[in-house]
Amino acid sequence: MQKKHLNNLIELLSIPSVSAQAEHKEDMVKTCLWLKKKFDQLGFAAQIYPTKCHPVFFAQNLSAGTAKPTVLIYGHYDVQAPDPLDEWVSEPFKPEVRKGNLYARGVADDKGQFYAWVAAIEEILEEQKGLPINIKFLIEGEEEIGSPTLDPFIKKYKKMLKADVCIISDSHALSESQPLVTYGLRGLVYTEVTLQTLSRDAHSGSYGGNVINPANCLAEIIGQLKDKNHKILIPGFYDNVRHLSKAERKELAKFPFRTKQVKDEVGAFVVTGEKGFSVAERNGARPTLDVNGIWGGYAGEGPKTIIPAKAGAKISMRIVPGQTDTEIFAKFSKYVKKNTPKGVKLTIKNLSSGNPILVDMTSSYQKAAAQALKKIFGKNPMYELAGGSIPVTCTFKEILGIDSVMMGYGLPDDGLHSPNEKMSLTMFEKGIATSKEFLNTL
Amino acid sequence: MQKKHLNNLIELLSIPSVSAQAEHKEDMVKTCLWLKKKFDQLGFAAQIYPTKCHPVFFAQNLSAGTAKPTVLIYGHYDVQAPDPLDEWVSEPFKPEVRKGNLYARGVADDKGQFYAWVAAIEEILEEQKGLPINIKFLIEGEEEIGSPTLDPFIKKYKKMLKADVCIISDSHALSESQPLVTYGLRGLVYTEVTLQTLSRDAHSGSYGGNVINPANCLAEIIGQLKDKNHKILIPGFYDNVRHLSKAERKELAKFPFRTKQVKDEVGAFVVTGEKGFSVAERNGARPTLDVNGIWGGYAGEGPKTIIPAKAGAKISMRIVPGQTDTEIFAKFSKYVKKNTPKGVKLTIKNLSSGNPILVDMTSSYQKAAAQALKKIFGKNPMYELAGGSIPVTCTFKEILGIDSVMMGYGLPDDGLHSPNEKMSLTMFEKGIATSKEFLNTL
Repeated sequence: MQKKHLNNLIELLSIPSVSAQAEHKEDMVKTCLWLKKKFDQLGFAAQIYPTKCHPVFFAQNLSAGTAKPTVLIYGHYDVQAPDPLDEWVSEPFKPEVRKGNLYARGVADDKGQFYAWVAAIEEILEEQKGLPINIKFLIEGEEEIGSPTLDPFIKKYKKMLKADVCIISDSHALSESQPLVTYGLRGLVYTEVTLQTLSRDAHSGSYGGNVINPANCLAEIIGQLKDKNHKILIPGFYDNVRHLSKAERKELAKFPFRTKQVKDEVGAFVVTGEKGFSVAERNGARPTLDVNGIWGGYAGEGPKTIIPAKAGAKISMRIVPGQTDTEIFAKFSKYVKKNTPKGVKLTIKNLSSGNPILVDMTSSYQKAAAQALKKIFGKNPMYELAGGSIPVTCTFKEILGIDSVMMGYGLPDDGLHSPNEKMSLTMFEKGIATSKEFLNTL
Repeated sequence: MQKKHLNNLIELLSIPSVSAQAEHKEDMVKTCLWLKKKFDQLGFAAQIYPTKCHPVFFAQNLSAGTAKPTVLIYGHYDVQAPDPLDEWVSEPFKPEVRKGNLYARGVADDKGQFYAWVAAIEEILEEQKGLPINIKFLIEGEEEIGSPTLDPFIKKYKKMLKADVCIISDSHALSESQPLVTYGLRGLVYTEVTLQTLSRDAHSGSYGGNVINPANCLAEIIGQLKDKNHKILIPGFYDNVRHLSKAERKELAKFPFRTKQVKDEVGAFVVTGEKGFSVAERNGARPTLDVNGIWGGYAGEGPKTIIPAKAGAKISMRIVPGQTDTEIFAKFSKYVKKNTPKGVKLTIKNLSSGNPILVDMTSSYQKAAAQALKKIFGKNPMYELAGGSIPVTCTFKEILGIDSVMMGYGLPDDGLHSPNEKMSLTMFEKGIATSKEFLNTL
């Protein structure tokens, strides 16, 4: 791999583009300016589009001409918040190479992955006479916060974004030698539920027994969302879930070592879930419900004998083909309201949502992806229903009428959204080579 | 009221003696030094006793002679943490008088209340020839954190602390015209429960469905602690609860406006609790269970799609005569363990505990208290089973063999443990006068 690609990526990772935190608003613009400079150098027409939230970066090079196909490469330059900070070995925004990995917030999700495509294009332009096909880049800054302004942007600039296929590298391979193509993604419904029962915190001795404790109440509501067998109890939740075909179950059953992997990657003491489904099936083909955060009352040192006035939780659901985000948010809200007693001020917000997706696997672009991956990795890709969500794939399908090719350059243990997020330098290098191969094959 | 008493109290309140926070360790010593200076001025033999935690302050004046009785006045100079800071109108450690109230952290709980006794003694010494009886003061600095070193201290200095009765002003009257004597107190079992299922936070898309979410699990455990009718579901929890006599229920039924009061004082949207009991009964004669704090995962702005590695809660129970702290902690722990699934690392800590108490109301000291209150307030006191806990009353009973006279100089709406804690200046003045009267009556 050329040294400059790593150096460029390190520069890009040093900008703390945390989309969820208002204090980083300027860093989002800074990242776009960095991208613009890079794409200007590559001879692309690049532009930054301000939105009501974070700017969208767009660049294109249509010099291959109208006879050639056009690919739209999607990525996101925003990253998750890095906390808990004290668990990072090196600082999240001071990228560091250790034992063949590059550590930094956002390196695998998604800066390192989309940058592999940029580096591939840089090499093609150095080695060949121009680009073999037309290329557009759409790099957004709101993926981690549910892309509030991206759908309207894609609608407004539908013509500019016109392409034959979308390429997304925002997932992972199975290992450095086993590539993976994603043909389905779970959707997301991410809510924030808050409960208030008092106008101020109350002494638990003086008032305990006579007032509703919002933290107890919240726990009771959450406790009614799932049963002991991990089944979600929201009425009608599973009504529209698409069932797997036998062929799919067989393909998914090939995935090796999933249980051990889950244990190793996040240190789970046990790997368990919904009965009657394998680890791979539960990961991609079954919906889930998780508390992502919970708070209320005193969390400091020692005892403090209060009844909190308020408590809240972030509760999200991963949904699968057949389910829709509006359907599930409505069913969730109705059930939570039903389980909230009188005397509690309840608010339920939909912080982020997106529908699940299932891709047509018979297209020439999917075949080209399989070929390129086989050439660089030496093995045919495996095919996966992924547990994560890339809601923009739905928007591309609905508004631009195109499918997405999803080939991941990350690895399962990259630690997305966690401390010490990393990307394997081998994967970065193979990503660049695969991208070059794919673009030259089309 | 003499101006100097208010000024002295303001000085005392300006020292942020928060016992739960290590950063205030020096302020605890500073408060003791302030007290020592004051009691030296009053001609008491005063001494500061270092402990493994915060120092104990002791002072005595035995000049009345062995023919006269000895009272031990108890107070605590430590205060609760002041957070949430942004809800205070004036700063918690810059006392401010507004509309006849003095606002500061700890003013009612308990600095202003025990200081009324100091001020009373100061006036007696100015007006009379010496003290009418022997007086000892024990002022501890660990009440708000469960007094970890006080019991051993009382055992060790049993002789020095010998007295005929203990006096505690760490509760409240019903109003500025209706005094209240407490004849029973609830005990406390304050626990911290933490759950861990992963070695690090995990992406909810990649791992959701296959790992145990400790925040969901914690909520499920809490959800099983009480039913919808506020009944605690821990097996055997109510086994030893003492039942109220008809006479007691009649006396407690006299308490006016309790429902409205609870609404006004803490802004409760509804006042509700265990079926079959009145507000006053639920406050003092029935045990409770409350989450005092809960945490886990991401509580910041926007969405963060993680499954937290850990989650925890502070859960406390107020217990009533008949129950004991060791019994209830054991039953609580057993039930929580039983409800925790495999694959979860559970820890349960007992952060603070104390037994409930019931006082013998036939003593001459109780009669003297009733007389003094009637003279100053113009009304006979009412008698209450209080919801709060003063565990030291048990220790006095068990080690020194003496009962406690508990007459409160606070008011129900003082906001103990909450932002904008206050004490009525009228109550401070009446407290001083009542204390003088009581000491001169014995």
